[in-house]
Amino acid sequence: MADVKPLTRAAILAVGSELLTPSRIDTNSLFITEQLNRIGIEVVLKLVVGDSREELARAFQLARSRAELVVSCGGLGPTDDDVTREAVAGVLGRPLAEDEAITAQLRARFAARGFTTPMPEINRRQAMVPKGARVLENTRGSAPGLWIEDEDGLTLLLPGPPRELRPMLSSLVDGQLGTRSSGTSISRRVIRVAGRIESHVDEVLSPLYREWEALQVPIGATILAALGQIELHLSVRSASRDEADAALERAAAQVVEFLGADVFTTRGLAMEQVVGDLLVDRNLRIALAESCTGGLITSRLTDVPGSSRYVQQSVVVYSNESKTDLAAVPPSLIATHGAVSEEVAVAMAEGIRSRAAVDVGVGVTGIAGPGGGSADKPVGTVAIAVAASGSNTRSRVFRFTGEREQIKFQASQAALDMVRRMLISR
Amino acid sequence: MADVKPLTRAAILAVGSELLTPSRIDTNSLFITEQLNRIGIEVVLKLVVGDSREELARAFQLARSRAELVVSCGGLGPTDDDVTREAVAGVLGRPLAEDEAITAQLRARFAARGFTTPMPEINRRQAMVPKGARVLENTRGSAPGLWIEDEDGLTLLLPGPPRELRPMLSSLVDGQLGTRSSGTSISRRVIRVAGRIESHVDEVLSPLYREWEALQVPIGATILAALGQIELHLSVRSASRDEADAALERAAAQVVEFLGADVFTTRGLAMEQVVGDLLVDRNLRIALAESCTGGLITSRLTDVPGSSRYVQQSVVVYSNESKTDLAAVPPSLIATHGAVSEEVAVAMAEGIRSRAAVDVGVGVTGIAGPGGGSADKPVGTVAIAVAASGSNTRSRVFRFTGEREQIKFQASQAALDMVRRMLISR
Repeated sequence: MADVKPLTRAAILAVGSELLTPSRIDTNSLFITEQLNRIGIEVVLKLVVGDSREELARAFQLARSRAELVVSCGGLGPTDDDVTREAVAGVLGRPLAEDEAITAQLRARFAARGFTTPMPEINRRQAMVPKGARVLENTRGSAPGLWIEDEDGLTLLLPGPPRELRPMLSSLVDGQLGTRSSGTSISRRVIRVAGRIESHVDEVLSPLYREWEALQVPIGATILAALGQIELHLSVRSASRDEADAALERAAAQVVEFLGADVFTTRGLAMEQVVGDLLVDRNLRIALAESCTGGLITSRLTDVPGSSRYVQQSVVVYSNESKTDLAAVPPSLIATHGAVSEEVAVAMAEGIRSRAAVDVGVGVTGIAGPGGGSADKPVGTVAIAVAASGSNTRSRVFRFTGEREQIKFQASQAALDMVRRMLISR
Repeated sequence: MADVKPLTRAAILAVGSELLTPSRIDTNSLFITEQLNRIGIEVVLKLVVGDSREELARAFQLARSRAELVVSCGGLGPTDDDVTREAVAGVLGRPLAEDEAITAQLRARFAARGFTTPMPEINRRQAMVPKGARVLENTRGSAPGLWIEDEDGLTLLLPGPPRELRPMLSSLVDGQLGTRSSGTSISRRVIRVAGRIESHVDEVLSPLYREWEALQVPIGATILAALGQIELHLSVRSASRDEADAALERAAAQVVEFLGADVFTTRGLAMEQVVGDLLVDRNLRIALAESCTGGLITSRLTDVPGSSRYVQQSVVVYSNESKTDLAAVPPSLIATHGAVSEEVAVAMAEGIRSRAAVDVGVGVTGIAGPGGGSADKPVGTVAIAVAASGSNTRSRVFRFTGEREQIKFQASQAALDMVRRMLISR
């Protein structure tokens, strides 16, 4: 019988030749990691292999030597390309045999989908089970999962499609896998900062890192620069989820103390969610006049469920005429200062606020590139203004770097951040 | 001296503990794969490890046993967390020694950035070079790359930040790595299809797969379902890039013959690029009235450089008043049919076309969810209309499934596809 040692380390094996091309990437491992972390299992290694029995066998051997739990996804389909069962059974020295109950289920499933011909015999490959393995029901597809255990550890073979893999793994984590974990869990918290560069955040927080490391239950911290925001990822391993949450809560409060209003979320929220929550909280509505961002700010705001309560309207005013027509920008202002100018951004913000009769108006005008730049106003120059009832209009000119889409995103982030800062100052 | 055998198989090793958390994924390997494929090198294995010397050493050993070329990225920074140099040098049995020229460059770089204190001594770690390794200049950052060769193969250690890794690898592929490849290259082509489900495309194309496999220079084909589109990935390995391109061109033409106008690109273009190209080609301008897509369609259109030539303006009309105010939708129409109706979509498309005085008008109204659905009009119901000068307005009601953002994306894709089909029919 298998030795029952607690599971603390896992390796993830993603199978599929498409995952080795320039256009596809394994994303299942993110969900798998999240689920395993919930029950205190850390991922120490990820491997991606093609539909090759030999490569898969070698990768599986390494995975098995580094971790007590190996989770594979993919390669359980009915075709010759699907070699996970064979490769793993080979390494473990377990002969494959057809499980008649699975075959019967596959036939029934096939018939239920209204096919008039019987199930192709090739599909019986999905009913092959390594000796001593436990079959995991697939409620969303034809490939059952497999649970194979021996003295060296536990191997889970899961189907590749996320909609099949996710419910199967979640129910294992809530059930038989959860009871086999070490009893601790890894809790994580993502804190996001706007308007600061990475090295500044890192320097300011360095005393905290040392303090967190020395705690009885130490908090791990990683700082990452993302587009338009700096992220601080905190993690703590603890037997008590309440204790872990309390530790992360204290750490988050310390970060806010050190960085102030530059912290826009201590709960991993997106900027558009934070701004949306503030608008709901203060019962305000917003309208936007976007030029170089081309609708991206409004699209981000409307990614948030319930945003129809506060997003009143937006106009995308690429041309000078539409800036005048839809955002009430005087043509003389454009003639004097140019369409990309702080003055025009202010006129756009105030114009759309007044036209839409809302509380908050935003105006954004800039040069997203790659063309359109000049020595005076290079590509990446973006003027942003926020007008709100009862406040002075705020405006600022930014210089972003990067490709067109990156400039658009950074401009959208800066505009939302200006709205956020205006709202929290009221 | 090193044996000079052609390089055909590569393994990629991504290093960094953040790549083993639920929120970060290795994406460098996509660029690395693309570059290596250009010179006929196939990726057979990808590994992701944390900042652990032991894990890295084990992963590197497997990588080296499976491929003649190992490319690692990350872990070359100056801190204790950066262990790639040490781990790889250990496995290869090559002692590390400080390269004084690199140290001098690091000090100069530090001084040039305007720091008044001298470079911290810890940064000298970046000047440590395994015996016999060649140093690869980093034009964008402080960590140099390393080229280490022995009788078993070639190892490249590259920095993790994409803006540093990319130019370094590209210049290697154009230069010394290119001359070491097998003389063949892997060419790829991505064909995209809209308005069809995966199994339909697969069935229609199955005779082609068999034909391509039997060719003297066989063409590999993989079909993948993505949100709002089906993708067909073709690949061919050939000594002659012209021959490969001709083979892919013929295959693409066959696909178009079998699937007709459902194919929207045979060159891997995004839908917004295809629509933009058609608008430029026909010298037409477009305006949009978006409700449930919240500006996403316009944002996608304006992701394309030069789109200011044809995107005249857009309005995001979430509220009924703004539909009337900005897209000239009669209030009685909304009262009779509801804001989410084919009739209102048509009025939005025709209204914005006329208001903006452009050739093509688009109207989109729907329920992105999670709230707002009814038995009659469930979440995912989206009405789309396209009005163009000299054509009858086309409209259609769709039922999309998925989360809010997925519904928004599918609606934006369907709207752009309707514009495309109208334009190619003229």
